[in-house]
Amino acid sequence: MNTTIESPGASAAPAARPEESGISLTPQEFGVGARVTLAVMSDDYVNLILGALDEADATGLQVTTGDVSTFIGGAESDILRYLSQLIGAVGRSGAHLNAVVHLSRGCPGEVLCERPATAGPLPGTVGERILTGVPAVAEWALYPLEDGGRGDGAPDHMRDIYAAIDFSKSNGTYRSSEHFVTRLEGDVADILHTVALGWILVGRTVQHVTSHVTLSINSPSMSRTR
Amino acid sequence: MNTTIESPGASAAPAARPEESGISLTPQEFGVGARVTLAVMSDDYVNLILGALDEADATGLQVTTGDVSTFIGGAESDILRYLSQLIGAVGRSGAHLNAVVHLSRGCPGEVLCERPATAGPLPGTVGERILTGVPAVAEWALYPLEDGGRGDGAPDHMRDIYAAIDFSKSNGTYRSSEHFVTRLEGDVADILHTVALGWILVGRTVQHVTSHVTLSINSPSMSRTR
Repeated sequence: MNTTIESPGASAAPAARPEESGISLTPQEFGVGARVTLAVMSDDYVNLILGALDEADATGLQVTTGDVSTFIGGAESDILRYLSQLIGAVGRSGAHLNAVVHLSRGCPGEVLCERPATAGPLPGTVGERILTGVPAVAEWALYPLEDGGRGDGAPDHMRDIYAAIDFSKSNGTYRSSEHFVTRLEGDVADILHTVALGWILVGRTVQHVTSHVTLSINSPSMSRTR
Repeated sequence: MNTTIESPGASAAPAARPEESGISLTPQEFGVGARVTLAVMSDDYVNLILGALDEADATGLQVTTGDVSTFIGGAESDILRYLSQLIGAVGRSGAHLNAVVHLSRGCPGEVLCERPATAGPLPGTVGERILTGVPAVAEWALYPLEDGGRGDGAPDHMRDIYAAIDFSKSNGTYRSSEHFVTRLEGDVADILHTVALGWILVGRTVQHVTSHVTLSINSPSMSRTR
């Protein structure tokens, strides 16, 4: 199944879209990317992570490993495939792990967003979802960031956040609302699908959108994960 | 040293302040809190985390442990003390760990912010900083969230983000700007001090502010951490 999120019409998205402004940006020029930290609660964590890196398909992606996280730049669907394969592979080892995923789009820089001011939102797709067979529990936060200075009417990001929550209910990953986060449960691929789709949904009307999710897998305190 | 961040005058902070609007909120009513996930890369992770929990002073805090993270509600200075003691204690074991900290203020709910609409920003203090003796490297993101509908002029959150970055340079924790994050290095307490101060600084003009930081401690790939 391919799930494509279409950019809404100009009446729903007051900001200029790339095709309207004549600007054509690649996902990396638009700052589409992720950071992932794998923390494996085992003395053998180095081998488990290296083995998972061998299993994950990085086609189309820039992957740069650091000492806190690994940066992954590229199109949304490629990022999602890579994260799902990587996290699923470590999960299948049976070791307890946390995977911390940070998604960002629309702000290639750090403090200053160095995109063209008229870039506007950019549509994206989540691609094909392939189940990992690894159940997880997760805590998810989704952030539309205005960055000020647009001055062209407030985008309706609450509409898109509600749409993201509704999607998490429709695919069965939604569990509850907690302090600061939404709790998700399900196959690693389903959880990441929910998170990426929410990020892209809000990206229909807001240029700079980030999302943070922490997945817990094979926890001794996991009593039920579907 | 006590570092108190004063709320600026009304001319700099167009949103109503609690004392101006006649609303008096406790930190928890204002949604001041944190989530922390400790991931220890050792077969002995359960004992190491339980030992650290015994060492951390939770006075004044609501602490609720879940299977993905631990929620900590209370005043900023109490949260900061607790996090520093907790993370420092695990770090002193010598085990490699990641600590994932998520700070939030100004939005007690999850999707809907259930605070009084006129609550406005709320000042806070970071309290006393006590070094842990544990060096760390970290990746930090800071999010001012408008949530729309205020309609009373855009708060100057970029000014406060710059002030937060400047503070990280003045206390020596700033290292570099990376994709989506700022890299910090230093004692665990100094890194958390920078993160909490940035969160409070932006909270001078923006009601709902979150911050995410991932600390890596005792990593075999850590070559230098001051």
